[in-house]
Amino acid sequence: MALRGGAEGATAAASLRSEEPSKSSRQTGQEAAGNCLRIGIVLSGGQAAGGHNVIGGLLDYLSERHPGSQLIGFKDGPGGILKKSRMDITEDIMAEFRNTGGFHLIGSGRDKIESKEHLAVAAQVVKDLDVDGLIVCGGDDSNTNAAVLAEEFASRGLKTCVIGVPKTIDGDLKNSQVATSFGFDTACKVYAEQIGNLMMDALSAKKYYHFVRLMGRAASHITLECALQTHPQAAIICEEVHQQNKTLADIVDEIADIVAGRAEEGKNYGIVLIPEGLIEHVPQIGALISELNELLADVTTDVQIHDAVMTRLSPANLAVFEFLPASTRQQLLLDRDPHGNVQVSRIETEQLLLQLVDVELEKRRKEGKFAGKFAGITHYFGYEGRCSFPTNFDAAYCSTLGYVAGALVAGGKTGLMATASSLDKPCADWTVGGYPLIDMMCIERRRGKDKPVIKKALVELEGPVFKAFQQMRRKWAQGDCFRSPGPIQFSGPNADAANFTLALELGTTKQINIA
Amino acid sequence: MALRGGAEGATAAASLRSEEPSKSSRQTGQEAAGNCLRIGIVLSGGQAAGGHNVIGGLLDYLSERHPGSQLIGFKDGPGGILKKSRMDITEDIMAEFRNTGGFHLIGSGRDKIESKEHLAVAAQVVKDLDVDGLIVCGGDDSNTNAAVLAEEFASRGLKTCVIGVPKTIDGDLKNSQVATSFGFDTACKVYAEQIGNLMMDALSAKKYYHFVRLMGRAASHITLECALQTHPQAAIICEEVHQQNKTLADIVDEIADIVAGRAEEGKNYGIVLIPEGLIEHVPQIGALISELNELLADVTTDVQIHDAVMTRLSPANLAVFEFLPASTRQQLLLDRDPHGNVQVSRIETEQLLLQLVDVELEKRRKEGKFAGKFAGITHYFGYEGRCSFPTNFDAAYCSTLGYVAGALVAGGKTGLMATASSLDKPCADWTVGGYPLIDMMCIERRRGKDKPVIKKALVELEGPVFKAFQQMRRKWAQGDCFRSPGPIQFSGPNADAANFTLALELGTTKQINIA
Repeated sequence: MALRGGAEGATAAASLRSEEPSKSSRQTGQEAAGNCLRIGIVLSGGQAAGGHNVIGGLLDYLSERHPGSQLIGFKDGPGGILKKSRMDITEDIMAEFRNTGGFHLIGSGRDKIESKEHLAVAAQVVKDLDVDGLIVCGGDDSNTNAAVLAEEFASRGLKTCVIGVPKTIDGDLKNSQVATSFGFDTACKVYAEQIGNLMMDALSAKKYYHFVRLMGRAASHITLECALQTHPQAAIICEEVHQQNKTLADIVDEIADIVAGRAEEGKNYGIVLIPEGLIEHVPQIGALISELNELLADVTTDVQIHDAVMTRLSPANLAVFEFLPASTRQQLLLDRDPHGNVQVSRIETEQLLLQLVDVELEKRRKEGKFAGKFAGITHYFGYEGRCSFPTNFDAAYCSTLGYVAGALVAGGKTGLMATASSLDKPCADWTVGGYPLIDMMCIERRRGKDKPVIKKALVELEGPVFKAFQQMRRKWAQGDCFRSPGPIQFSGPNADAANFTLALELGTTKQINIA
Repeated sequence: MALRGGAEGATAAASLRSEEPSKSSRQTGQEAAGNCLRIGIVLSGGQAAGGHNVIGGLLDYLSERHPGSQLIGFKDGPGGILKKSRMDITEDIMAEFRNTGGFHLIGSGRDKIESKEHLAVAAQVVKDLDVDGLIVCGGDDSNTNAAVLAEEFASRGLKTCVIGVPKTIDGDLKNSQVATSFGFDTACKVYAEQIGNLMMDALSAKKYYHFVRLMGRAASHITLECALQTHPQAAIICEEVHQQNKTLADIVDEIADIVAGRAEEGKNYGIVLIPEGLIEHVPQIGALISELNELLADVTTDVQIHDAVMTRLSPANLAVFEFLPASTRQQLLLDRDPHGNVQVSRIETEQLLLQLVDVELEKRRKEGKFAGKFAGITHYFGYEGRCSFPTNFDAAYCSTLGYVAGALVAGGKTGLMATASSLDKPCADWTVGGYPLIDMMCIERRRGKDKPVIKKALVELEGPVFKAFQQMRRKWAQGDCFRSPGPIQFSGPNADAANFTLALELGTTKQINIA
């Protein structure tokens, strides 16, 4: 378990580098006084494997470099800061959480600290608690929040540094300085195990198409990585759908073509991977959802929703809305998330696609163009991937990020995201540092208002990962090139290998074994 | 990986024991002539992890003990015998399938060799192919079939021995001589990994109840084992439901009581495990399904089905039928399986229960008896568990059974099931033998007719496995005693451990760590 125990190796580098983070980092007026530190940590948003190791890495940093320091865990997300709901995290408590999945040591939550009032409360809390640093583990929204808090604390002359840690299984929080977000590696491998198992089942039973919906709303990194891991008949990448302005009917046609092509060879089985965000990336439906998000931002009752849809939706979008099956229409209007957006993850896109492919194939059958059998089974692999035991990669990456975050606070840095790079090298050779959160930000429209946010990293259609997929997908569609990667291992020959996405992006490999 | 490579150890025992199998075994008139053997193998029914290792173990036996022998794989199930659809399995081919999941080396199928005509064809085929033995890997039905074939071949004076191998992830093919069926260990551990992940998610997010349906139609062994592995808030055991004559309303009440009890402590989350066979084990619904199975045995069109239900169903069962939600009624009438039975696995019992629990809690809320939150998410873990890489236990058990099956054929034994016992000892000390299939058989009603079948082993409510669960379940219901066992490991400290069910039944442990 080289990587698993390897955080200590990387942390040596961390402590070296933490004294000289990115030149563009802003310093607070005040350096942390004395050798003892008080640092608070908060977990924000959906779970991702490795969260406990971030806390563990931070505790290690404090124990090793600043003995006598205090680590405070804010409970159940950013709301815990506002409520001063917290716990002291000691080594005794930490011991049983290292390398485990879940965020339950301190909990997580989706509250946001955005309003003037909340910002003032948060500032008062960190002042009252006399904390030198606040570590925020979260996705793009939470790190945007971290940037705002850093600014707020600095402008009030508070000593509290704010450091972000990139967390999201979706893998869409990365950039030139942030190689990956934690939890992505584990989630993909949990899903790939299950997909591989389904493939062996499909290949053995030879009678079903499995339509598998995977997490990944804004970006299709998970679906792409799972495709590279398992070699399915089809994997839909939202970024491509969007770029090529595909309609639902186009996608259905493509899948039906693959099914029909395989049927000619007597192969009436296969696997189709679908990212949960698909339907909002189909431009015609994306436009519909986008208008719904605006229209329904401040609307709550069923009657209001119905009125908003029937009277205020533009005719073009109303037509698209009415084209969808009743069950999908219903799902589009379900409870909104805290950002006021359609809960895209509730839409059973895999069912929708299966139904539409079935209809298309029956049409072709009547026209004498399809003579195969088509029976589908749907799956949604979602929550299972968020709280697994972290892979060795995520375990080590998280310990390292936690350690680095501590070092950045000790160095009086604020408004940075903790980073580790050279991830293709052995863990002891990773280099670490901090990257300004503000450099990642842009303007996006939310709840009908412009807002500064961290830009989500989408799948790059000209990047090496999509290219690797593009090169192989026709072969995978027609052939039976299934790859079943098996369960995550914590020891053994491949236990430390990171995912294909990272390897391709780092250039560790130009071509992976995806034949 | 002691067990994984350990089949060789056990096979030493196998070869010793195979010369003296159970006294009650019947011998064919003819012993296998010469040193070379021709053995056929067929995989029947649903996939179970380890099938390829049975073939590998059989090939090892032939290579080591009867060099120059031929191993014939009948393709895509028993139908492959009738069609003479087959392939030679050599070490070159076998090499890449050892320790892998799935049945795709030779495929599987659900055809049955039952009619006089089919039995005659099968006899002609084994005669034409000059095979000394036929190994049938399957569940209760397939092994019943194996017994019939053994009888048929013997009565025709054919030399072909028939040996069964116990395969079913459901774990319901076991008895005093057959410790377990292969695939059960792996399937339970695949499901337990996912359930454990969901638990950590529930505990971290603190806002959902996950209702998880698991495979296991006739018996609830999988649900029981998964409960011991993970410690959920509730796990429904069909055998108990049946014995206590519980209604759906009783079950819904019990779950609602647990939810309400936890809500009083502010815990609005948890996990409920549900075996897929539940609704036919609720006696009132079991009676309905049983009558439907008889009524619809020879009925195919929608109109006939509707007529049969509305005009011929007894008034009591019609009332129960009409009490069910429309979606469930629809599911009860879906395509029948090849035995003419309701496809119980298609019924989304987890959805049904979630809806009914929600209704019950809303009722209690109005009565002022429930003030908590209740939000549910449903899951079905099924196909994912059938084709995983086998656990070390299943890998070794299957290699051993394959080896033993070869030895039994070489010894001229027929109508036996290959067995391995002392499974609580290290693999090299397992003892092996054969147990007469006919000793496992009884009479059951199928498609409205009496038929000899192998009796399914149900969960014993007075047995040590259920007792272990019963002892802990109240504590698990109210507390947060979640256990996340993590992904199956192939090396490391616990990689070789078999499941709790087997350990408790073998008396290896009186009490397992289920606190």
